Amino acid sequence: MRHVISVLVENKFGVLTRVAGLFSGRGFNIDTLNVAPTQDASSSRMTIVTRGDDATLEQIVKQLNKLVDVIKVHDFRDGEYVDRELVLVKVAVNSQTRAEVMQITDIFRAKIIDVQPKSLTIEITGDESKVEKFIELMNPFGVVDLTRTGKVALPRR
Amino acid sequence: MRHVISVLVENKFGVLTRVAGLFSGRGFNIDTLNVAPTQDASSSRMTIVTRGDDATLEQIVKQLNKLVDVIKVHDFRDGEYVDRELVLVKVAVNSQTRAEVMQITDIFRAKIIDVQPKSLTIEITGDESKVEKFIELMNPFGVVDLTRTGKVALPRR
Repeated sequence: MRHVISVLVENKFGVLTRVAGLFSGRGFNIDTLNVAPTQDASSSRMTIVTRGDDATLEQIVKQLNKLVDVIKVHDFRDGEYVDRELVLVKVAVNSQTRAEVMQITDIFRAKIIDVQPKSLTIEITGDESKVEKFIELMNPFGVVDLTRTGKVALPRR
Repeated sequence: MRHVISVLVENKFGVLTRVAGLFSGRGFNIDTLNVAPTQDASSSRMTIVTRGDDATLEQIVKQLNKLVDVIKVHDFRDGEYVDRELVLVKVAVNSQTRAEVMQITDIFRAKIIDVQPKSLTIEITGDESKVEKFIELMNPFGVVDLTRTGKVALPRR
């Protein structure tokens, strides 16, 4: 099962390594992870997407809660959250295909953020299904390069 | 000095821990980090924002290159790249302030992605200065919650 886990941590040295180590130590691979400061610069929030059995994950969450630099752990299993991801995609274009790539970009309300003679770099945000669909539509043109942030999530309430 | 480092890695177990460990082992704090699969599911790209002296960082980059699961390291110092970040901000609103928050959201071409009786959740993307400015303008209303992905970057060429 897929899990989105949000971990609020003290913004200190080595916390990331310890948190990531808990997952790899239990044989959980991390699909995506990101970490950045919150509105309070002394704390950072990590959002981790992982998959595996619920029982083991519950153990990991318990151990996370015991780490001294972990302030709060939230396992977003309930659907009561909003999540988004940002992806930058560099797509190969030529004078024939540029207009079509621009049209699809427009339909997805994505943005062209760089233009080169033979490529366009496009920024797209959305939930996973939207982003995946966009990449699928870009594949025939040639995806030269791609970087994604992984999900971030906030509880609705 | 601030550095944006992009590390292409094999999508394997424990790579994240090893890469993050190299930074913390050398006393470099990581400002933001994200990792997610690329267009080829067997590899992931990590984008790391860190600050510290150039000589030590050069050592870290060399050691990264020696890690067996690291495919490619790119130190984006030259400015020849585009970068973006995604931030979700939950802002406290009431019937008096809602319109004003919506106006500012509009000016920044940000999107409201969730509405609750006493809050709005807003998605904003951009470079650091844009995102920081938006958060600064939201502060007087009350930032209830905030999560950011950290930068992702692609070379222009």
